[in-house]
Amino acid sequence: MNDRAIDKTGDKRPVKTAEQRVQEATDWWSTSIIDIKPGRIGIRGYPIEELIGTLSFPQMVWLMLRGDLPSAEQGALLEAAMVAGVDHGPHAPSIAIARMGVTCGLPLNGAMASAINVLDDVHGGAGQQCMELLQAISDASPDAEPGPDVIAAVVDDFIAKNGKIIPGFGHRWHKVDPRSGRLLQMVRDAEAAGIVDGRFGRIALGIEALLESRKGAPIPMNIDGATAVIYLALGFAPPLGRGIFILSRSVGILAHAWEQTQQGGRIKGPMAPSIPYRYTGPAARSLAPDPATSA
Amino acid sequence: MNDRAIDKTGDKRPVKTAEQRVQEATDWWSTSIIDIKPGRIGIRGYPIEELIGTLSFPQMVWLMLRGDLPSAEQGALLEAAMVAGVDHGPHAPSIAIARMGVTCGLPLNGAMASAINVLDDVHGGAGQQCMELLQAISDASPDAEPGPDVIAAVVDDFIAKNGKIIPGFGHRWHKVDPRSGRLLQMVRDAEAAGIVDGRFGRIALGIEALLESRKGAPIPMNIDGATAVIYLALGFAPPLGRGIFILSRSVGILAHAWEQTQQGGRIKGPMAPSIPYRYTGPAARSLAPDPATSA
Amino acid sequence: MNDRAIDKTGDKRPVKTAEQRVQEATDWWSTSIIDIKPGRIGIRGYPIEELIGTLSFPQMVWLMLRGDLPSAEQGALLEAAMVAGVDHGPHAPSIAIARMGVTCGLPLNGAMASAINVLDDVHGGAGQQCMELLQAISDASPDAEPGPDVIAAVVDDFIAKNGKIIPGFGHRWHKVDPRSGRLLQMVRDAEAAGIVDGRFGRIALGIEALLESRKGAPIPMNIDGATAVIYLALGFAPPLGRGIFILSRSVGILAHAWEQTQQGGRIKGPMAPSIPYRYTGPAARSLAPDPATSA
Amino acid sequence: MNDRAIDKTGDKRPVKTAEQRVQEATDWWSTSIIDIKPGRIGIRGYPIEELIGTLSFPQMVWLMLRGDLPSAEQGALLEAAMVAGVDHGPHAPSIAIARMGVTCGLPLNGAMASAINVLDDVHGGAGQQCMELLQAISDASPDAEPGPDVIAAVVDDFIAKNGKIIPGFGHRWHKVDPRSGRLLQMVRDAEAAGIVDGRFGRIALGIEALLESRKGAPIPMNIDGATAVIYLALGFAPPLGRGIFILSRSVGILAHAWEQTQQGGRIKGPMAPSIPYRYTGPAARSLAPDPATSA
Repeated sequence: MNDRAIDKTGDKRPVKTAEQRVQEATDWWSTSIIDIKPGRIGIRGYPIEELIGTLSFPQMVWLMLRGDLPSAEQGALLEAAMVAGVDHGPHAPSIAIARMGVTCGLPLNGAMASAINVLDDVHGGAGQQCMELLQAISDASPDAEPGPDVIAAVVDDFIAKNGKIIPGFGHRWHKVDPRSGRLLQMVRDAEAAGIVDGRFGRIALGIEALLESRKGAPIPMNIDGATAVIYLALGFAPPLGRGIFILSRSVGILAHAWEQTQQGGRIKGPMAPSIPYRYTGPAARSLAPDPATSA
Repeated sequence: MNDRAIDKTGDKRPVKTAEQRVQEATDWWSTSIIDIKPGRIGIRGYPIEELIGTLSFPQMVWLMLRGDLPSAEQGALLEAAMVAGVDHGPHAPSIAIARMGVTCGLPLNGAMASAINVLDDVHGGAGQQCMELLQAISDASPDAEPGPDVIAAVVDDFIAKNGKIIPGFGHRWHKVDPRSGRLLQMVRDAEAAGIVDGRFGRIALGIEALLESRKGAPIPMNIDGATAVIYLALGFAPPLGRGIFILSRSVGILAHAWEQTQQGGRIKGPMAPSIPYRYTGPAARSLAPDPATSA
Repeated sequence: MNDRAIDKTGDKRPVKTAEQRVQEATDWWSTSIIDIKPGRIGIRGYPIEELIGTLSFPQMVWLMLRGDLPSAEQGALLEAAMVAGVDHGPHAPSIAIARMGVTCGLPLNGAMASAINVLDDVHGGAGQQCMELLQAISDASPDAEPGPDVIAAVVDDFIAKNGKIIPGFGHRWHKVDPRSGRLLQMVRDAEAAGIVDGRFGRIALGIEALLESRKGAPIPMNIDGATAVIYLALGFAPPLGRGIFILSRSVGILAHAWEQTQQGGRIKGPMAPSIPYRYTGPAARSLAPDPATSA
Repeated sequence: MNDRAIDKTGDKRPVKTAEQRVQEATDWWSTSIIDIKPGRIGIRGYPIEELIGTLSFPQMVWLMLRGDLPSAEQGALLEAAMVAGVDHGPHAPSIAIARMGVTCGLPLNGAMASAINVLDDVHGGAGQQCMELLQAISDASPDAEPGPDVIAAVVDDFIAKNGKIIPGFGHRWHKVDPRSGRLLQMVRDAEAAGIVDGRFGRIALGIEALLESRKGAPIPMNIDGATAVIYLALGFAPPLGRGIFILSRSVGILAHAWEQTQQGGRIKGPMAPSIPYRYTGPAARSLAPDPATSA
């Protein structure tokens, strides 16, 4: 048995007392989110039983992430964004991964985990990156409405760093994303009712105008752009744009995983069996030396 | 290049035509959940733009999982269960894992994935297992209210297979789970309003009574038991009890991961540095042979 | 601030002293595998610097998992099994998931994690299940060689519980698995050299004979069967059959993820874009009530 | 049923023929790593049965990742690095996560997946980042040995971008990492035998000298630095430094997960129960309005 106190900085320092070590262990994980006592759970100070049946799920998401209570209208706008993002079909990588996972024996938590993991920079991060772009344009003109020159300069800087795909605009599938129009209408209504500032929505329209002038054809906002406007207008930080998208897309991931469980299937790969894959490697060869060439 | 058709059963069968192979590839992934055409997304047949701003998030969850639309009251009961389960603090394994993950450099999707993965049979499966137990009791007395003898028999059968912990009852932390009382009141209200049948709630109370009589002290329903009653009363299959709990707990996982990002920390293990771990292995030894004992 | 000692069983018990709590925290994680002191790392008691450049990687795997040192011959047999299992192409779900993951922006650790996760009961557990079957046959005849009747009885019991696919035998792709022959030859050589007992190999051949007599055609051992024989002959517990397979298949997962990184690709789903998926859900419908049918 | 060909770019293009679509589907996943025909598996062209029992596991790793065969000496150096990195105890986040995972009911694949996922930029990426730094120094002086000025300039540039922790040097636990000395000796021996160029080793020593002169105390190479030297000397790209570390650390992750399975434990969080966590959030408050302050 080898029980001794190892101070993180090596054993030069005096060994801490038991009280000090209990204190350090207590402080090792700290949170402002939840307080738990026997028989009591406080979420940001509110007894959880007050919140159950009172807050909507999006309002609870907001309280957990932000620490304050959103109004009913703010909650409704967040809810619309969360409803919009739940799914985009079994050929989306995250959905396909969940389906394949259950055919390998995974329970729902495992199928969901493998799928959620791939909602990374490219597949799930577009909303976050669009928020960062909109925020950068806003920051470049803090005291006034960003004009076309400002928008073009920041967009070009983004392209120089990240490539020519502007997150939030255009879509591989949809010339017009059926989700954006409805969401943007709700943003306009919320602006008219004084619930959100319309600044980020106007910046996004400015990007649309810029891209259309350059391309010669419309490249309208897609789901990532529309939700980026909503999340920024509601005051969320860009990484939470990705986080909330994950909460939303998890619904589709769960639904498809569950459906696949009902359909059956065993160790399903991505392709039907009668479609081969492309082999581009060496022709068959042997480890055994070729007498003509060996030393 | 090695492009040829390999039939799953070996190359005895005639090679499929291109049309047959396209058909098989098309059928390889099938779903009733979502239909996507350029410019159109249908969720269980409904254009998604009709659902945005109309359905609550829990109603959308229901539609995605079940294929039909819940009433506002059904949605509210589901919502209460989802709100109740979002978090239980930084010492819960799933939450701790998310926090550790961000200190290792993971983005939010990765931290959430590692965490959600562990909501398995024991940590996230209690709700599902409680649903299976309640369902088993109900199935044992399909035409009448299950009496104490039926309940005891099915519970004993469960204990014989699974051990003495009855999922849904008791709690390591809370003598009375502050979340159950509120949820069970909402179930009673819903039953009084004719929205759900009270059968599963009564079965759960029967288990409570049995456990109390055997233990000599109350072992009341906890969050898993209360939500199990709700999910069964609303008609969800037991694995979806786990699935919906995952959607709920993902909120806490995200919130804690985000908070840890703000707090910083670098490669945080589970314990504070001044707490060692217990080593129980061999004393120091050497590969080098001991002259006294070597052959 | 809310710093107090909560005993796991509620606050009925006397609060522990600081020394008791440090002790409990120290004991919370215990291991016989590794001892770490500043400047010293002992693996099962051996200074790690003695093992580097001395043990083969499979011998290190053995020492870490089992606690003792395998001979060079035992290590070589384990190594052969590990080499054999590294890959089965980009249409295997685990490999496809890793490839899709990197096109979504995942780094190698994330792509590997999503992939390894699906090596579950069906996709990665075949070797473990085959080991359990072989072990069950061996246990049914502990003092003698299991005869055909014993083998048939245990196999039938397995089929009743698990369905008609016998893990370790047959293969969707290969009538004769090119990996098995070589592995089984190495087992026979090891048996001849007195390194392993041939019991499990003979039991596996007995299952082959049984399946062939019932099917009317050979259903030879595949990679899972051959490695199952090796792992049992070397004394590994069945779950470690899955664990070692994971270490092996991780090599293929990493190689394919890395290759996909070099190939590029952006948010690649499982199917090429010109192949649609099958939609089987409701025809387009609307939330809006139909005047002819609404109340 | 809704079966139609959707071209990725919308339906402006002529619909592809069935043959074209089969071709596109075949090309969707391509690889040079493995060729599979019924009864045949070729790894980079070599029949797999030639490799089993012939290649060491590290040689197989090399072949899979690189496409060519390493010499026995190159394989031995890679093997030493892989052996060195297998574990660093149950307080490392990856190891702790695997242990917690099995107490939540996860099988070994799930516990390993959650753990491997966190070997990200900070926890598993140090080796990769050190390789990038060494490579940058080498690239800054392509035709000559990089001198102290070059080393200092590149290191300062790294610090400006990434902060003051230089990956590969120093260690929170070990003043002298017991793994580095042995590995660096093997590198020197390999250099003397003409197996590797000593360039990257000399650059690393130059960084050591620089850090010591600035700190006034030695900051010697740790395991990440030593393995970075080895991987670069053997010609691996920096991301594969992370990938190979993952293959190595997976052994420790598996061993600890397996050990925890044997020890038992149920839903173990990071901390012992008698250690609370620090709550820093609001005091208890209520949703109900305070009559004195409500509107």
